Amino acid sequence: MNQTPDSGFAKIQYKFEKIKSNKAFELFVISIIVISALLIGAKTYPLAPSVQQATLIMDYFITVFFLAEISIRFIADPNKKRFFHSFWNCFDSLIVLVSLVPIDNSEMAVIGRLIRVFRVLRMVSIIPELRILLTSLVKALPQLGYVMLLMFIIFYIYAAVGSTLFSSINETLWGDITIALLTLFRVMTFEDWTDVMYETMEVYPLSWLYYLTFIFLSAFAFLNMVIGIVVNVMEQEHQKARADKLAERGETEPTLSDLKAELAQIKALLEKKHHV
Amino acid sequence: MNQTPDSGFAKIQYKFEKIKSNKAFELFVISIIVISALLIGAKTYPLAPSVQQATLIMDYFITVFFLAEISIRFIADPNKKRFFHSFWNCFDSLIVLVSLVPIDNSEMAVIGRLIRVFRVLRMVSIIPELRILLTSLVKALPQLGYVMLLMFIIFYIYAAVGSTLFSSINETLWGDITIALLTLFRVMTFEDWTDVMYETMEVYPLSWLYYLTFIFLSAFAFLNMVIGIVVNVMEQEHQKARADKLAERGETEPTLSDLKAELAQIKALLEKKHHV
Amino acid sequence: MNQTPDSGFAKIQYKFEKIKSNKAFELFVISIIVISALLIGAKTYPLAPSVQQATLIMDYFITVFFLAEISIRFIADPNKKRFFHSFWNCFDSLIVLVSLVPIDNSEMAVIGRLIRVFRVLRMVSIIPELRILLTSLVKALPQLGYVMLLMFIIFYIYAAVGSTLFSSINETLWGDITIALLTLFRVMTFEDWTDVMYETMEVYPLSWLYYLTFIFLSAFAFLNMVIGIVVNVMEQEHQKARADKLAERGETEPTLSDLKAELAQIKALLEKKHHV
Amino acid sequence: MNQTPDSGFAKIQYKFEKIKSNKAFELFVISIIVISALLIGAKTYPLAPSVQQATLIMDYFITVFFLAEISIRFIADPNKKRFFHSFWNCFDSLIVLVSLVPIDNSEMAVIGRLIRVFRVLRMVSIIPELRILLTSLVKALPQLGYVMLLMFIIFYIYAAVGSTLFSSINETLWGDITIALLTLFRVMTFEDWTDVMYETMEVYPLSWLYYLTFIFLSAFAFLNMVIGIVVNVMEQEHQKARADKLAERGETEPTLSDLKAELAQIKALLEKKHHV
Repeated sequence: MNQTPDSGFAKIQYKFEKIKSNKAFELFVISIIVISALLIGAKTYPLAPSVQQATLIMDYFITVFFLAEISIRFIADPNKKRFFHSFWNCFDSLIVLVSLVPIDNSEMAVIGRLIRVFRVLRMVSIIPELRILLTSLVKALPQLGYVMLLMFIIFYIYAAVGSTLFSSINETLWGDITIALLTLFRVMTFEDWTDVMYETMEVYPLSWLYYLTFIFLSAFAFLNMVIGIVVNVMEQEHQKARADKLAERGETEPTLSDLKAELAQIKALLEKKHHV
Repeated sequence: MNQTPDSGFAKIQYKFEKIKSNKAFELFVISIIVISALLIGAKTYPLAPSVQQATLIMDYFITVFFLAEISIRFIADPNKKRFFHSFWNCFDSLIVLVSLVPIDNSEMAVIGRLIRVFRVLRMVSIIPELRILLTSLVKALPQLGYVMLLMFIIFYIYAAVGSTLFSSINETLWGDITIALLTLFRVMTFEDWTDVMYETMEVYPLSWLYYLTFIFLSAFAFLNMVIGIVVNVMEQEHQKARADKLAERGETEPTLSDLKAELAQIKALLEKKHHV
Repeated sequence: MNQTPDSGFAKIQYKFEKIKSNKAFELFVISIIVISALLIGAKTYPLAPSVQQATLIMDYFITVFFLAEISIRFIADPNKKRFFHSFWNCFDSLIVLVSLVPIDNSEMAVIGRLIRVFRVLRMVSIIPELRILLTSLVKALPQLGYVMLLMFIIFYIYAAVGSTLFSSINETLWGDITIALLTLFRVMTFEDWTDVMYETMEVYPLSWLYYLTFIFLSAFAFLNMVIGIVVNVMEQEHQKARADKLAERGETEPTLSDLKAELAQIKALLEKKHHV
Repeated sequence: MNQTPDSGFAKIQYKFEKIKSNKAFELFVISIIVISALLIGAKTYPLAPSVQQATLIMDYFITVFFLAEISIRFIADPNKKRFFHSFWNCFDSLIVLVSLVPIDNSEMAVIGRLIRVFRVLRMVSIIPELRILLTSLVKALPQLGYVMLLMFIIFYIYAAVGSTLFSSINETLWGDITIALLTLFRVMTFEDWTDVMYETMEVYPLSWLYYLTFIFLSAFAFLNMVIGIVVNVMEQEHQKARADKLAERGETEPTLSDLKAELAQIKALLEKKHHV
């Protein structure tokens, strides 16, 4: 607050803060992210060697630009410690630092390309609306904790029963409990689930019971998960609407309690007169 | 307003306005649109040459009728400029004008038939309820903008990773980023997604993680899109209901503030008497 | 009302009305319907000739019983004309009368069996809760009229385009407009839709646009249909709840208008005193 | 209540009650259940003989531990009769008792392993939140009774028609009514339903009507079931919210009736004065 902007570092910090909060700078950063995303997409096509050379140069430029941008944001922040308390700052820094690691070896090239893909996620960190959306999505998850635990228990029991009974019928579908879990997820998405069923029905003719009960239980649990989310969102909307209405009314609208207090005063006045 | 209907053109305009707002005329236009739709359907069947000749003649008649109808509506409109401000008027005019272009060449015949298909859409422009429905659907879209952007980012990242890792396994499914986006949309609709997965699991045994996380993320984002629409629609219904209730009550039902003002008057009366 | 139960017919009517409204009789009718349903199911299994003979006899018995039951209900009704105003009475009578038609000819036997299947629907007509449920379902349909019309227009346009462009590629999927409508319904249920798409993409590489826009449009229209139903149901529930609350409160809870009238009286009293 | 804890048994009961309500003991029980679940999962993998020996020993230990735990809980309960009135206590006891039955015979070993799988369900009985969740899910079912009955009637009629008409076309899909019910469930999940349809369309070209009406009817009934659940859950949430609001307000907020009573008193005071 009372830092003198005369000192060298403070001057730079002040300048960088101005750059950071500049709208044009923000748009420039977004366009660089979009270009980096398009570059990643372009690399999945077969390219002429000259174009490939160009993408390599652009890649270097983008890496350097991102490094510069994160440095500006770091220097602009008056409180260096708090900078890394923000999840999105840490995320951006990590993306930038990891892509600095030089990868010449051809075997590692694929990993290098994969890491660069996550630069697209910087889109989320730079657009506030997307950040809020993602935060609210993540916040909704823990409320679903117990329904998801229940669903996992259902899956686990059916997978244990399935791999015990059916592993001798089809090793690739019911070999062990993890493979059986994957097969059950497939059944839940209705993906060729009857092929899986008809195969086991040849050995255990009643095994349709296994599949039908599983589909009903998992669909029912899933439905409850969805309803849970819907009810949560609706509740939040209602609370927000009610809070807005209260704030808007402010002091103007009296409550019933106010009226009762008023009436009590009138009665007191009347009774005083009466006794006089 | 103060145009004299004596002048020649104004007379015609007045007459055409009467035709346009005639209920019977409207029904006649709708039935012509239905006939034109049936004609389009009939042409997809193998037809005898004589019938084919008949459809050609009917086609000419419908084209001429639509031209006449749009002319009547244009001339009937007192404000010629405003006529093309309406999206539906422009749409109707375009459909009519394009189908005027003569197509004799057999190669272009298919394109001519395709353009005539869009005449069915005139059904939407002529029935007000459908127009309102479509307008409200289109209005709901921008509110979903950020969720759709988030969904596209998820798709893009997974498509980039998929085409980087799996393009050597199956060129037709993961060849480049656009093909990979289509494959991911297929996975999202659960269409034979396990076939896609089992193929890549032979090379990367852990690639089921790629598919499961994608399905969970995209389903979660999709669910939020649906909930967003539902909450929006509900909110609009509530506001409409509240507005209806207020309008219906009108001045008859006093508010708590009215009662408080009343009480203040009584207190003032009492206090005046007291001090007398 | 003032019918004398002495007259012969009135006596019978009175007796039959007692039978009809007897709880035990109703349960007996329901159990006969259940037996008739089980009989229909049993006939789909290969049966020994002796058992087949038994089912035939039971079938005769059930036909006669249903005829007797409908006669009792008809005679018991004091107003014979109104009897056939009820949809369910007509439905029951039709089912009973049709199954009276003797079918000996073996070719017609299948039709006879099919007609008897609809006896199961008598379950709906005899249980009031099911009748109410079905009535409310049917009542919800017309409110969806315009969304369904819009959906049909979308289907029709895509079917016309599809059968125009793709009929030469696959005659069994796109041969004419009705086949194309069926194929599009299949695409909408995501049933092997990629097989349909990959086939046409070999000739028209951009035809994925056709499928994707269709899926988005139909899913969006379908979503709106579902939301429309949900909002309708919710609205009805709310109105019922509000009506219940009002009825429960009755006269006990005064309105704000009552209080205002009360205040006006007090003010009048005060002012009278003041002027005295 | 007035039992003297001096007596031998009462002392033990008191001690066991302390153990039972100990938080550490509860966590220990949960971790044993998790270990038993992992053991069940591990057994689905091919294991070395030594490891197999180890799992056998652990299995014995877990059986003994569960027996001890249920005994402690039984002895700790002051009212022995009420102990078996709780569904979860009975469930736990059954699981423990059944797994006590010695299974040496290799043919019965699979059954023994299957019974042990249900130990995982003890997770639900020990975590209160899961128990509440499951109870509320089960409670929601009877409210759906009539919609499910209606759905079963739809399925039964279509299965009877299907197995009557199509059993000669494909014995494995339409052989008798139970197989037909399974096939219809498959059609309802959209699992390769067009393959089923195209096969019967070769004999009955209009059989697409059968499938389309079935899909529409079952989807419509299913939709109503889902909406029924959603409306129920919402209603419960609203009632809970309203009850919370009332409880929170308590006596502080007066009702309109209170105000009216107050006004009546004032009027009485005024009138008394007037007449004096």
